[in-house]
Amino acid sequence: MKHNFGAGPGILPHEVLKQAAEAVINFNGTGLSLLEISHRSPEFEAVLDEALKLVRELFEVPEGYSILFLQGGASTQFALAPYNLLPEGGKAAYLETGVWANKALKEAKYFGETIVVATSKESNFSYIPKDFEIPKDAAYFHITSNNTIYGTQLHKFFKSPIPVVCDMSSDIFSRKVNVADFGLVYAGAQKNMGPAGVTLVIVKDDLLGKTNRKIPSMFNYQTQIEGGSMYNTPPVFAIYVSMLTLNWLKAKGGVEAIEKENDAKAKALYTEIDRNPLFKGVCVPEDRSHMNVCFVVQNPEHEKPFLKYCDEKGIVGLKGHRSVGGFRASIYNALPITSVHVLIDAMQEFQEKNK
Amino acid sequence: MKHNFGAGPGILPHEVLKQAAEAVINFNGTGLSLLEISHRSPEFEAVLDEALKLVRELFEVPEGYSILFLQGGASTQFALAPYNLLPEGGKAAYLETGVWANKALKEAKYFGETIVVATSKESNFSYIPKDFEIPKDAAYFHITSNNTIYGTQLHKFFKSPIPVVCDMSSDIFSRKVNVADFGLVYAGAQKNMGPAGVTLVIVKDDLLGKTNRKIPSMFNYQTQIEGGSMYNTPPVFAIYVSMLTLNWLKAKGGVEAIEKENDAKAKALYTEIDRNPLFKGVCVPEDRSHMNVCFVVQNPEHEKPFLKYCDEKGIVGLKGHRSVGGFRASIYNALPITSVHVLIDAMQEFQEKNK
Repeated sequence: MKHNFGAGPGILPHEVLKQAAEAVINFNGTGLSLLEISHRSPEFEAVLDEALKLVRELFEVPEGYSILFLQGGASTQFALAPYNLLPEGGKAAYLETGVWANKALKEAKYFGETIVVATSKESNFSYIPKDFEIPKDAAYFHITSNNTIYGTQLHKFFKSPIPVVCDMSSDIFSRKVNVADFGLVYAGAQKNMGPAGVTLVIVKDDLLGKTNRKIPSMFNYQTQIEGGSMYNTPPVFAIYVSMLTLNWLKAKGGVEAIEKENDAKAKALYTEIDRNPLFKGVCVPEDRSHMNVCFVVQNPEHEKPFLKYCDEKGIVGLKGHRSVGGFRASIYNALPITSVHVLIDAMQEFQEKNK
Repeated sequence: MKHNFGAGPGILPHEVLKQAAEAVINFNGTGLSLLEISHRSPEFEAVLDEALKLVRELFEVPEGYSILFLQGGASTQFALAPYNLLPEGGKAAYLETGVWANKALKEAKYFGETIVVATSKESNFSYIPKDFEIPKDAAYFHITSNNTIYGTQLHKFFKSPIPVVCDMSSDIFSRKVNVADFGLVYAGAQKNMGPAGVTLVIVKDDLLGKTNRKIPSMFNYQTQIEGGSMYNTPPVFAIYVSMLTLNWLKAKGGVEAIEKENDAKAKALYTEIDRNPLFKGVCVPEDRSHMNVCFVVQNPEHEKPFLKYCDEKGIVGLKGHRSVGGFRASIYNALPITSVHVLIDAMQEFQEKNK
């Protein structure tokens, strides 16, 4: 039994994996693999429809917003957001809260002027800047809701006079958000929604078609909306597994229920980090992520032995990103609280051994 | 037992599907699913390395060419080819042999001037134009090696004074080609290489960096080459299944061996179409595809009953594309010759019944 704390592609529910494996052999009793059926078959169209319906229901996506399953990861959206929303000669505002926010910013520069409204770079992104002004004349304001590498998260979104574009790759479906507060939300699937290979995009329809840019078909949200995420062959398997995962989430009680579980997992783990004299957190407490819990050892000599101790207990994926060091326990939706308790027990036993 | 003649996503080898399903549950004995491991893990890096090595070996890709696994399908490459190869103010030449060639052409128009050197549109693309001149001052000459919808195929490539860009989505790995004759080859995986969700790109390195365009990172072949197909999270599962399929092809004797099988399958089926008075082919014989065999009934009243007869025998995916009608038997690499014989038997039995 492994306890998978990996940062992504991350843990998926066991029953989802079981159903996915079955579909690879014989999909819904068709006698064919899910991998070798037409994406235009009624069988797959039903899968896509269900996946779209589940996103709308679970994430409470209001009328006037389109939902897309695209390819290319959030990194492709770093370019498609300005391609579709930033007019020629316009400017876009960015909040710099980590490497991924910075990568998004870098791609926007290909399309126009950018303004960094605030950054926490000077402290290695250990907090979320809050005291800044959003320029009213920018086309949009881009934020990253959860910073996987640094373990920070926006627990409250900003009031904005302009449309907000949000990269939610590492915390989508982990908590209730008000979609109407956003102009565009995008997320790579591989943390809370499914396997790598599909990207969720939720866009407010009336923001589109206003840039005067000529956008190639595949990069144009409008084309993808008209094609119903099937302008070309979609990533069939990744969409199917996402549909299964969303169904699993629905059966668990939806986003509200999982948010409570996620809060409980985070609280238990941060409580131990703060209590245990061998460890300490790396972010300011008020901005601590409920998805990626980053912490370090007080005594550097304990780092490798603790990782080894965890490894022996089946706790995997705990090594922190090289730019922060230490440990990162990713506690995505599918990670059961029992795994968090196994980690907490390991921390306590390790403390006992190192008295 | 189904005989899968679907046009794509198409049939994959049974043993590949079996291994893929196992990996979804427990990948290589790690105790984790392939879907929930890091793409930076040594386990997945080994998969990607092997897949790249197999492409280089089986397709005999020479030095000076880079191999990439990207997302977004061939439709994304329709835009990325001109984005990367067509200089500002330059022009590109296209051979129009069907809907997909036309879609590629349409995307190039976003980036510069285009010239259609020849078209067979007037005959619903029933042949490959051969009498034309390739403009020496164009940046590249774009062709589609196999036209899935119409059942035509380029059996001989053109001598070109400029780099040739080729969409090989529906016949890659089905026959020996000389990669050195091309500047860029791309192919969606979902016919002969793997499941939908990954696209193979083979590009001649010295053609890159010459357009003076500022290309966003994800759309820039150079970035993807430097990132080793991992500039961002790659489509892990689709690459893994492609690796398995390429390994299967290698074990079968590689491209040369499969080409012989494909020729035998095509010959058997076209012979029956020409012999059987109930059916007729739709393309000029010299351009008939060895991947997608398109044919119609002489008497329109036979169309539905024949499809029904086939369905009862487990022959699936035979319905032709709406723009051609009739039947399309896709006989990709993984389709065994026994399935072709089942179809031929069905055609002969159907003839007997309709005497």
